[in-house]
This record gives sequence, C-alpha cells and structure tokens, in this order.
Amino acid sequence: MSVGVVKEQSITFESGIRLDSGRILAPITLVYETYGSLDKQRSNAILVEHAWTGDAHLAGKRDDADNKPGWWDAIVGPGRLLDTDRYFVICSNVIGSCYGSTGPTSINPKTGKRYNLSFPVITVRDMVRAQKLLIDTLGIDKLLTVMGGSMGGMQALEWATQYPDNIASAIVLASTPRPSPQAISLNAVARWAIFNDPTWRKGEYKHNPKDGLALARGIGHITFLSDESMNAKFGRRFSAKDGQFDFFGQFEVERYLNYNGYNFVDRFDANSFLYLAKSLDLYDVAWGYESMSEAFSQVKAPIQFYAFTSDWLYPAYQTEEMADCLKKLGKPAEYHLITSAYGHDAFLLEHETFAPLVRGFLKDIQAAD
Amino acid sequence: MSVGVVKEQSITFESGIRLDSGRILAPITLVYETYGSLDKQRSNAILVEHAWTGDAHLAGKRDDADNKPGWWDAIVGPGRLLDTDRYFVICSNVIGSCYGSTGPTSINPKTGKRYNLSFPVITVRDMVRAQKLLIDTLGIDKLLTVMGGSMGGMQALEWATQYPDNIASAIVLASTPRPSPQAISLNAVARWAIFNDPTWRKGEYKHNPKDGLALARGIGHITFLSDESMNAKFGRRFSAKDGQFDFFGQFEVERYLNYNGYNFVDRFDANSFLYLAKSLDLYDVAWGYESMSEAFSQVKAPIQFYAFTSDWLYPAYQTEEMADCLKKLGKPAEYHLITSAYGHDAFLLEHETFAPLVRGFLKDIQAAD
Repeated sequence: MSVGVVKEQSITFESGIRLDSGRILAPITLVYETYGSLDKQRSNAILVEHAWTGDAHLAGKRDDADNKPGWWDAIVGPGRLLDTDRYFVICSNVIGSCYGSTGPTSINPKTGKRYNLSFPVITVRDMVRAQKLLIDTLGIDKLLTVMGGSMGGMQALEWATQYPDNIASAIVLASTPRPSPQAISLNAVARWAIFNDPTWRKGEYKHNPKDGLALARGIGHITFLSDESMNAKFGRRFSAKDGQFDFFGQFEVERYLNYNGYNFVDRFDANSFLYLAKSLDLYDVAWGYESMSEAFSQVKAPIQFYAFTSDWLYPAYQTEEMADCLKKLGKPAEYHLITSAYGHDAFLLEHETFAPLVRGFLKDIQAAD
Repeated sequence: MSVGVVKEQSITFESGIRLDSGRILAPITLVYETYGSLDKQRSNAILVEHAWTGDAHLAGKRDDADNKPGWWDAIVGPGRLLDTDRYFVICSNVIGSCYGSTGPTSINPKTGKRYNLSFPVITVRDMVRAQKLLIDTLGIDKLLTVMGGSMGGMQALEWATQYPDNIASAIVLASTPRPSPQAISLNAVARWAIFNDPTWRKGEYKHNPKDGLALARGIGHITFLSDESMNAKFGRRFSAKDGQFDFFGQFEVERYLNYNGYNFVDRFDANSFLYLAKSLDLYDVAWGYESMSEAFSQVKAPIQFYAFTSDWLYPAYQTEEMADCLKKLGKPAEYHLITSAYGHDAFLLEHETFAPLVRGFLKDIQAAD
C-alpha cells in the first residue's frame, strides 16, 4: 500500500559542519521526509539514502492529484519491504543537491547571492555528517538500518565506519568502496560536457546550460544501463522517423539518450550535478585511513551487500572486495550477487529479488537487538 | 628493420562509385602507401586496413628527420611480421577521412567548396568499394591477405564477403560483425559533444571546433582503454598540480583524457570524425542479407580472428560469434582470444603475442596457394 500524501520537512542547523576540506559550511538546511512512526524505544528508524540525482521524496505522493510516486515507492509503505506500519522511515536530501538541502543553488548568507562555484567541494562523508545532525535532532540514538544504492550505498558505508555506534545494520546496494578510474573517466567527460557549454559561464548562469547538462546526463545513462539491457530495449533499431543515410539520423538508443538528457535539464541543476559528480569520484571508504581494512576495523554493525552482475559502473568485484575484507576482520557481512541484465540501475528495479533477503536480514537484526 | 623513407601516393577515379545510400560519389581520390615489391605472379600483396582515425602511413618515416614512424611500423618492414622483403604491403586511407582520400574536407567539384555536411553518409562497404578500384589498378587480382583491427577488421570482413574471389585470406582483429547499442551510444555522445560546440556551425567551420572535438575524442579514449589498463596506468591518483578540493582539480586519468582530446584537434577533422563514427555505427556485416550466416555463405577465404579479453567496445563474444558462424557453414575460420589488459587498443599493442600465429597462418595460406 502507498504511504499516501507526504509533506516535505525542513530543518536548519545554524552552526553547520566542518567539511573534509577544512572549510565550514553554515548554515545547513536539510530537507527530509518521514513515513510511519517512531516507536517508544526509538528503535525502529530506518534511514534510506538517495543516489546522485535523487531527492528526499522516497515514497508516497505530494498531493492527492500527484500520480508520480516517490523514487523508491515500491519498497516503502504499509505491508511493503520497509513496512511503515512497523518502521519509521526517513529520507533526507544530501547537501550539494538542488532539492532543498544546502547546495550550490542556495543563497550564500555572506553575499546574499547563490553560492554557485563558491560552494565548497563536499564529500560523501560530509553528506553523512550533516545527516547525523538530523538523526540526533530526531532523537534517534541508533538507526535500525541505513540502506542505499550507488551513492546511497556510499553513505551507508560512511555511517558504518564513521558512526559505528549509531546504526544496528547497513544495507549497501550497487555501490563501491571507491570508483574505478573508468567510472571517474565517465564522470569526467560528463563534467567536461557542461564546462564546454558557453551558457554555463563558470556556474554563473540564469538558466541551466541545457545542451551541456543534457549531454552529461546522456553519458550518465550509458553507465546506468548495460550492454545486455540496451540490447533488449533498443537493439540496433534505427529511429523510424529517420533515414539510415541521414547525417542527423539516430538509432533508437541515441534518441533515448537525447530525450532523457533534455528531460533532465528541467529537473536538476548543472552546478549540483558537478558537485555531486565530484563527491562520487572522490569517494573512498578508506579516506583518512591507511587502508580499507583499517577503515572497516571501525565497523560494528552487520552489513548486507548487493551487487548486480551487469553493473559495469560499480562492478560486483568491488562489492565482493568489501564483504571479503569485513569477513577477514571477523565482522558480520553478507554478500549477494544478483543476476540481472539491468546494469547499475538494477538496484532500483530488482527489489522483488532482494526483498526476501532484506526482510530476513532485518528480522535477524531486530531479534538480536 | 624499418622500411625507411616512404612517399605517399595518390590516385583519382573520375567516375567514382555508387554508394550504399544510392548516391554517386565522384571523383574519388585515394591516398595510399606501399612497401616492398609486387612479385611477378602478383601473389604477394597484403592490404592493411586502418581504424577510425588512422591514415595510409602504416610504416616507415616521411623523411630522414622524421622520428615518428607509421602507425603499425612495429609489424611492417624487412624481417618484421609483414616482411617487406617477401610481401608487397599496401595501406590506403579510407574515403570519409581527412588524410588525403575524398572526404568531407575535400572540395565538392559541383560547388567549388568543401563538402562539409553535403558529403554523403558512407558505409564501411563503400570504403572497400573504393579500395577495390585501387587494388584493380595496381593489377592485383587476389590479395594474399587483408588485415585490420577495429574498423580495419570491418573492412577485412567486407573484402571477405563482397569480394570473396579477390582475397586468399583475411585477418580480423578487435572487430565486430555489428557494434552493440552500447558502442553506438558511446559514439552517439561523442557526436553530440561536437554538435553542442557552437563553433562547429553545422559543419561550416573555418577552424576545427576544438572543445567539442576534444571531448568527443576523450570519450573515445575511454572506450579504447579498459578498467584494468586504467587501473594500471592511472589508478585513482589525483593530479599533483591540483588540490583534491579544488573544483577544477583533476584526477590523472581525467588530465590524460583532456590532454589527448586537445592533441587530437590538431590532427583530425571534426566532420570526418562524425562521418566515420556514423560508418562504424551503421556497420553490419549482414547489411543487405537476411542474416550473418547468409552474408558469410559468400566467404571463400580462410579468416583468422583475434579478440582481446579486456576489449569492452567490441567484446570477444562478438568475434567468437563470427568464427562460430563460419565454422557452422563449414568455412575455415580460426579464433584466438588473447588475454590482455589493454582493452580495445590491444590490437595495436599485443603484436608480439599474435605475430607467431599470424606468421603460421600466412605460411599455410601460401603453401595452399
């Protein structure tokens, strides 16, 4: 069942946080949504982390007329995987984003103008630092679980290593301890596409630099899909509207990238895209440690990992490496490799496959509590 | 040994060819180089086909002071794999290119101006049609072999299917019977990068649209390398010149793509890049046939195939599919999968690995002759 109409909430922390870069970001506003009720023991809270271009609107609808549910509505609601009759589910928009939390589109209180490129470079750890303030404010000492895919999985890893006493478990999907140089390269050319757009004006635009941002997103879509899923969805079909010998004629897959690229311009800010791409590339779970092993020696909570066979952006071997590392340290870690053709996007699409496993994991966590 | 100083040659076919699109391209000039001497029986000619941004300058140097040898110099010369003491080696620049053969930078005789986008869309089969005129003019009825990697391999496949009586063998490296939608997508975003460059002006530029073309080439480089080779070459090292928290700071791999992208602008024309990208995407060995099997039923010459484990642009399974198809038809085909971390570029770098196999293959072909 759907959680129904949900209202966005907002909270501001005047003193902000000190970032990994050493800079202070203040104030910090976080936009978030919650679903279900916190129990008396404050022990049933689940934090769901969104990915790169996601937002706090995890589930439900904005109003009665809204027919586009939240981004992971399929798993959140009464009777659903994250059962809001039992759990208090929280999703907050990350700093750096453009969906209400403080980011490059926010007004810099020192200048009265948008931050744009004066916004500091932030890390995934910084995003979680800000979230920690929210969780504290909600009066939650220990989250039952932190769950997320892709950049959301990185955030869950940060909770596990930076706030080991404040989570009872973590669920990490389609993520990586550190993106490979190939993944970095694909973000690098996406950034480059925006830098090349003359309307970007080093971040000082009035209107989103559409051609550059659309192309950047088009590049992103290639990495979210897989060779297999593209074959199944488009094959080598040529657009029925175009002649094969037209210079500007397009393959269907090309048209798809174009269409989705330009659609994205209406919903996401180019500077936010750039800052978050940077956060992704800089991400390293071992940041500040000698090694992944040293970072993982902090972990106290059991972690459940999911990787997807056709995910070539954050390939399965990278997730397996994390699970192996934890096991060697004697920490409880579960690794599930899910066969899927959907590529990186699989974490959003294969919920029926992983739901029983997540359910079992949460049951065990609660039983152990 | 090097073949030494080589002079480029040129030939013009006034009546041109009829293209796959139905259009006539005339006149056609082809620029080519030859190394070694044609024997009396005219039976020792080897045609080497270049890839996307290659040229006719396969081996040797332009003059005594030239210290940058031809692109596949390592395998062509006295005593080398394609031994110019024994073979007459030919390499011709494809139509559509910008290295002397007729392409979008050529003058359209009807207007007295550069073709630019009035140049017709061409196919790999069209490139080979033009080459066939050259081979006929050189008085060669049957090539001992046609050898090429990537787009060069596609050309070898076209010789094998379209001119089965005119080759005694073919050697196809790192190629594909038809690029996958993923490969098409990566070319599509490269094209898009050029289209986005306001200095491209729908092909009517005076100077190469540098930012767009550099980005397009940067995207290309990602596909030429592999996750493994990028890890070995760059890892996640950050440029020593930049701070990790600089907004414009770059990873080394990012700097590499940038550097090579901008270098490319000095040596290759944007419109040629676009036309050849299109030819690659449109390539299908079964073009005009019901199936690959029907196309391959034309083949008479033995074909030796090479694929490379880390080539994700034209993955090994695609080459294996071709070898299997030929074998099912009872045609002689050899398939070699070479373990290499170099990605698609491996065909240019792993020559020491495949040289003994090519040598044996050529020996058998000559013995059978």
